[in-house]
Formats: sequence, C-alpha cells, structure tokens
Amino acid sequence: MMRPLSSLGLRSDGDRVELLDQRLLPDVERWVDATNPHDMADCIRTLAVRGAPLLGVSGAVCLGLMAAHHEDPEAIRQAAALLRDARPTAVNLAAMVDRVMARWTPDDPRSLCDAALAVFDEDVALGEAMATHGGALLADGDGVLTHCNTGGLATVGVGTALGVVIRAWERGTRLHVYVDETRPLLQGGRLTAWELQRAGIPFTLITDSMAALVMRAGKVQRVLVGADRIARNGDFANKVGTYGVAVLAKHHGVPFHPVAPFTTVDLACARGEDIEIEQRAAEEVRGVRGSFGAVRWAPEGCAVFNPAFDVTPAALVTSLVLDRGVFPPEAFAARCARG
Amino acid sequence: MMRPLSSLGLRSDGDRVELLDQRLLPDVERWVDATNPHDMADCIRTLAVRGAPLLGVSGAVCLGLMAAHHEDPEAIRQAAALLRDARPTAVNLAAMVDRVMARWTPDDPRSLCDAALAVFDEDVALGEAMATHGGALLADGDGVLTHCNTGGLATVGVGTALGVVIRAWERGTRLHVYVDETRPLLQGGRLTAWELQRAGIPFTLITDSMAALVMRAGKVQRVLVGADRIARNGDFANKVGTYGVAVLAKHHGVPFHPVAPFTTVDLACARGEDIEIEQRAAEEVRGVRGSFGAVRWAPEGCAVFNPAFDVTPAALVTSLVLDRGVFPPEAFAARCARG
Repeated sequence: MMRPLSSLGLRSDGDRVELLDQRLLPDVERWVDATNPHDMADCIRTLAVRGAPLLGVSGAVCLGLMAAHHEDPEAIRQAAALLRDARPTAVNLAAMVDRVMARWTPDDPRSLCDAALAVFDEDVALGEAMATHGGALLADGDGVLTHCNTGGLATVGVGTALGVVIRAWERGTRLHVYVDETRPLLQGGRLTAWELQRAGIPFTLITDSMAALVMRAGKVQRVLVGADRIARNGDFANKVGTYGVAVLAKHHGVPFHPVAPFTTVDLACARGEDIEIEQRAAEEVRGVRGSFGAVRWAPEGCAVFNPAFDVTPAALVTSLVLDRGVFPPEAFAARCARG
Repeated sequence: MMRPLSSLGLRSDGDRVELLDQRLLPDVERWVDATNPHDMADCIRTLAVRGAPLLGVSGAVCLGLMAAHHEDPEAIRQAAALLRDARPTAVNLAAMVDRVMARWTPDDPRSLCDAALAVFDEDVALGEAMATHGGALLADGDGVLTHCNTGGLATVGVGTALGVVIRAWERGTRLHVYVDETRPLLQGGRLTAWELQRAGIPFTLITDSMAALVMRAGKVQRVLVGADRIARNGDFANKVGTYGVAVLAKHHGVPFHPVAPFTTVDLACARGEDIEIEQRAAEEVRGVRGSFGAVRWAPEGCAVFNPAFDVTPAALVTSLVLDRGVFPPEAFAARCARG
C-alpha cells in the first residue's frame, strides 16, 4: 500500500490509481483505472490524461504502485521503458520516470514508492509557490486572459497559470478570466472553462480570434499562460497560439507572463530557435473530437498546418513567474548564465 | 422570364432562383429553391445563404422574378418588406431591395427585372475591378493570408479579397494561401477551403491561433480580408478576428489590405467607434454546427462573448483595395472628405 493521493485528475486509494478521462470533459466525468502500466500507457497515448506535470506524476505513481505490490523488478523496468516512451515529446514524463527509477533500490520497494510520492508532493508544492509569487501581480478587479489549460487538470496541484488565478480568487481578489478556447484541441473551452465553473470564478469564454478585441476594450490587465519548455534566454515554448497572444498583449500594453516551475527550464537550450516543435495530425484542424465523437467541417484531405506549440521570444515577456520568484527576462537570463 | 443567371452560390433559369445551401458545405452541395419570397427569407434568416453582396443580389433577384411572373404589385411590396428585414444587420440586403424597388414602375414589370439584373451584373463587375487593382499588389511566390470567406460564395462574382487571389492565380501568379479557419462559424475552414480546392489553388488551412506563427516564419507577404462597413477615415468593420490579424501583420511588417466595393463605404460614419457591433448566440462559441448537426464542447450555459464583427483602425491598414483603385488610408479619407 502507498499513501492515498487525491487531485482533480488523478486519485489513488494506495492500491490502485485512477485518472479522470479528460477527453470526455466537461460533460462526462469518468474515472478510468490505470494501475496496470499498459493501461496507463494507453491513457497517455490517447490523451485521456494530459498536461506535462500530470503526465510525469502519473508515470511515477504507476511505478510506485508496482513496487508497493511487490512486482518483479524486471517487470518494473519494462514498465518504466514503456511509460517513458508513451509520449516522446513529453519531457516531464521521461524525466519523472527516470528520476523515480534512479532513486529505486530493487530490494527495497519502499524506495520507489517514496520517490513517486515525492514527485506528487513536489508538484503540489511548486503550484503553491507559483501561486504565491504570481498572486502578488494581481489587483482587485483585474481581468486576466489565459490560453490552454494550466490548472488542476494539468498538474496534481492547483496548477501553474490558472493556479495563480485560483489561489488569488480564494484569497479574495476579485478577478474576471477571459478564456481562449484554444483551437485545435480546445483545452480552454473544454477544461479551463470546466475548472473555473467548478471553482465559481467568473469567466468569459472567447474564440482565440477575439483576444485582440477584448484587450482593445481594456478588459485585460494581465495575460497568464503556461510554458512547456523555457530556454536560458527566457524564450519559451507553449501551446500553439501563445505567441500570437504575446504579440497582441505587447501591442495593447498588457503585461504578459509565462507561469511554470523552474524544472521547465532547459539549461541545455540557449534560445527559442533551438526548440523543436512537433506537428500533430491534420484531422485536429479539419474538425473536432469530444465526448460527442469526431466531426469534420473542412474539405476532406485538405492541407493543414498543425504545430502543437509555438515559441514566444523573451522580448515579449514582461516577467517569468517561477516557483523561485518573479524574474524579468534579463534577470532570468543572468540567473541561468550563473548556472 | 428573366435572363438566366449563374454563380457559385446562386442560379436561375429565368423562371426560378436556387441557392446553394452554405450550411451544408463542404460535404453536401444541395441547391434549394428560393423563388417564393418566404422561402428566400427563410434561407437568409437561417444562413443557408450569407455574404453581404450575395444577400443583396438574392433579395433583388427574388423580387425581379416576382415581377417576371406578373405577380400582384401589392404582393411584391410585401415581399420587399419581408426580405428587407430578414437580416436587419445586413446593410447590403436592405440597400439592394430599396434600390430595385425605387427603380420599379408597377405597370412595367420589366423595370423591376432590369433593376435586379443590374444589381447582379454590377456585383460581377465590381469583383473584376477589385481583382484588377488588388492583383497588382501580388508577386509570384507570395504567401497570402486571408480570414473568413470573401470569394464566389459571398458574392455573385469572383469575390472581394479571395477574388483578387483567384484572378491573380488564373493570370499565372503563383501563390500560396493561408486560410484562417475563422471561428466561431468557420467560414474559412468550410467555405474558403472549399472554394480554393475547387479552383486548384494551393492553400494551407490553419486555426486562427496559428496566424502569428505563420507570419513569423516569413510565409505571408500580404494579408487580404473583406470589409462589411468602411468609415470615412478608413477604419472598417469585418468578421471578428480581423482586427487581431491586423495587429499581427503590423508587428511582422506584413502589408494588410481590406478589399471591398466602394458601396461598402458608409459616408455617414466618421470613424470605427461609430459602428455598432452585433452580438450573436452563445451556442456558436460553445460548440459548432455543420452538415453533421450541432455539437457542444464547452460547459453548458457558460458565459460567452460573441461579437459578429470587430473594427480595425485605419492605422493598421496599408491600403484599401476598392473597385475604384488602391488607396492608402490618408488618400481614402481625403477622397471621402471631398464627398
């Protein structure tokens, strides 16, 4: 048995682990058992579970439970290899699997359990630290625009960018959130809207094409987004569409902040141009998929561009909100240069 | 009998008029009879037919055919009132209905037929004039980004912004078109993609959130969009999302041009702030509708912002492409000031 765990998208009674199937949200809240590493890998591959931090924790917890069940060390090694590669571009997943495996002493199953629990607890703590630092930027009455989903469904804590909003709201800061629907996968329209509705935080859902208009109308005082990878100079990759929002924020004089744990910084990466961007399936742009099934509205087979991420240059960043504090890009680059 | 008419979205054998049901494109090409003014009004109200110029021609042709059938003058007057109000915000529709009715001598049915035919012919001629002036801006190898649908489905001619592209391509200018899908109603993904595929012009469909990335990659040399209403100072209203594209174009140094007939200029309107913007139904943002039916992915009942249009200030316009020529905003404003 491991210690029981509970978060918005992952839960464990200490014997089994279950994931909330994010493909079916917001209309259907179905938990699926992912205790078996093959089931967990399927959940990861099919996007039933998503969000870089949550993927990492999910993989670690799956391995921790195998150790708790005294499974054969060779089976654990094979499961680690399987999970590590379930989504090759998810850096967090491989990193967390590697980390718990490095801390594992095969003749002490407890060591792997403890390493998995540490990954979970660390993710929660990082969310709280980001929320504390980022919250200081928000004033009563602010409008906050966000892109994609960066809340409790992307992590096992309160989240990154959305975590800042949620904790500030709980402390009594009155806010209004403008939620980009975030085509093509609609993480904003499906997941962020669901989280904010659950939390009782007032928000307005907009199409990505309306962000400029909302800024021009003076309704947005801060833009808070997540980050998937941050280069040493402060350039960062995030969900496609983030770069456009950054340009719009600059034009309208709205402060723009990526919010991420320092573990997102890739010290081996000097600048944004070095970040490779994965292309995804054309069907995602030709239509949409959800609890209702798949529909297509564009002509069958038409050519499509579908990068999963884009890169925002540091020049468009007001400051980076990290668990270690808030850093203007120059200060961040200087800190990275010191190592 | 009236003269037979043929365009991408409207056709008449001189006795009846049919419209291509644009709600079912691109997968289903179904023509619906709209000879009866009540059927025509239904087609307009339910968006089976759309596009400001096409709406105006459709209303005019319906009335012309009533005269050709020697219908009672009082029935024609009632039909004109019905059609005029079928979409209150469609300025073109009311204007064209008023225009043909003003040219009608009730004891000469021919006068109304001729007025309707003149409206049709003028729309075709305006498209060719815009294509000639706008085509001079395009060079071999250019990438052109466009938003919404402004081609043969929005007019009875070659179109406005998309007409420029189509005629330039036919003259041998090699182009690649980046098509914004244009949420919420997806006129880009559904209609522009369908028109370009039919015309054999190479294009790439993108989500609206990818326009910035495509510009940053140096793939776009011109942005061409339509206009629903142009103020005397060169500010203009167009499909929501146009303003954001204009800001992105400015940031990336990409020339940006609205393309529209001079009839789109509202000389009574001094500046963009004076243009009232219609809000549409929340369901359009919470999901999508097409030949497959309606689906929803956002939480039921969640708050939504859904303006049909936005206003782009003249400061972001490189030049306006009109049927009368190409005008930088200052020259346009000076010409309007002269009256």
